[in-house]
Amino acid sequence: MIRRVETLSTEAFAPFGEILAKPDTPGHSINQGSGESWLLARLRLTEQEGVAALSLYRVAAAPADFRIGVMERHPASTQAFIPLGAGTLLAIVAPAAERLDPAAIRVFAVPPGSGVNFATGTWHHPAVALGVPAEALVVGRVGPGDCDIVTLDRPITVDFGH
Amino acid sequence: MIRRVETLSTEAFAPFGEILAKPDTPGHSINQGSGESWLLARLRLTEQEGVAALSLYRVAAAPADFRIGVMERHPASTQAFIPLGAGTLLAIVAPAAERLDPAAIRVFAVPPGSGVNFATGTWHHPAVALGVPAEALVVGRVGPGDCDIVTLDRPITVDFGH
Repeated sequence: MIRRVETLSTEAFAPFGEILAKPDTPGHSINQGSGESWLLARLRLTEQEGVAALSLYRVAAAPADFRIGVMERHPASTQAFIPLGAGTLLAIVAPAAERLDPAAIRVFAVPPGSGVNFATGTWHHPAVALGVPAEALVVGRVGPGDCDIVTLDRPITVDFGH
Repeated sequence: MIRRVETLSTEAFAPFGEILAKPDTPGHSINQGSGESWLLARLRLTEQEGVAALSLYRVAAAPADFRIGVMERHPASTQAFIPLGAGTLLAIVAPAAERLDPAAIRVFAVPPGSGVNFATGTWHHPAVALGVPAEALVVGRVGPGDCDIVTLDRPITVDFGH
């Protein structure tokens, strides 16, 4: 199997969670009308004695021969990734389910100025960057348990389009 | 009173919360050694039936004659601001306390590629940007109550250094 890198859009990413970027719709007025706000995602981070936390990840770029060989999920929590600075992350995802369906895996580029929030239980690859190493803020759960990992019998090639 | 805009640093911001940027210290190994992570801040977002949420704010730039006339605090929750894209936010803050001490107010620039997390109860001005309008992701609590607002008897002038 081979997967090409897709452009992030609200519709395309909907099965996996929320995009963290300004929607096209009008927001709610804040600060006596000098600003607007949009509620993008409700987070679930404190199940099973978990603590909500902000972490910084520094992640390597995917090599040219990168293949998707492992996926993980957090069955009871959401997890958000926000690139900091100029880096672009890859969001390699499959819908939440008891068992991973490798055929359902998709790959999205998450460019600077945006981010993604993985819905509870969404399967995803460990964080990896596109082209060059990247830093990202991660809004997630810290605490015991809550991570399933599976190894793919047949690793999936990624088409980076170049 | 007058306050100049200060550069963000871990030490200077410590009385008000955490800086969201890569520390100088080594991180924890992740992804089989291809990355590092740093736990930057534990969040408190679900007191009093609150829900942890990611929101996007679009905020106006402070006008040249900007003065600090109002401050607010969330007595039972943290709140994080992460500029998205090229905007710079102002973090106008005073230490958590039952009563605001206007003399303790300080003003920090929060540039792209960083962010701040306000510790529980930290007094802060409603979000405002430096120079041009900015967008920011906000990790905060949504739900009933949890916001105190005070009006300053004598508004404070901000020295933008230009």
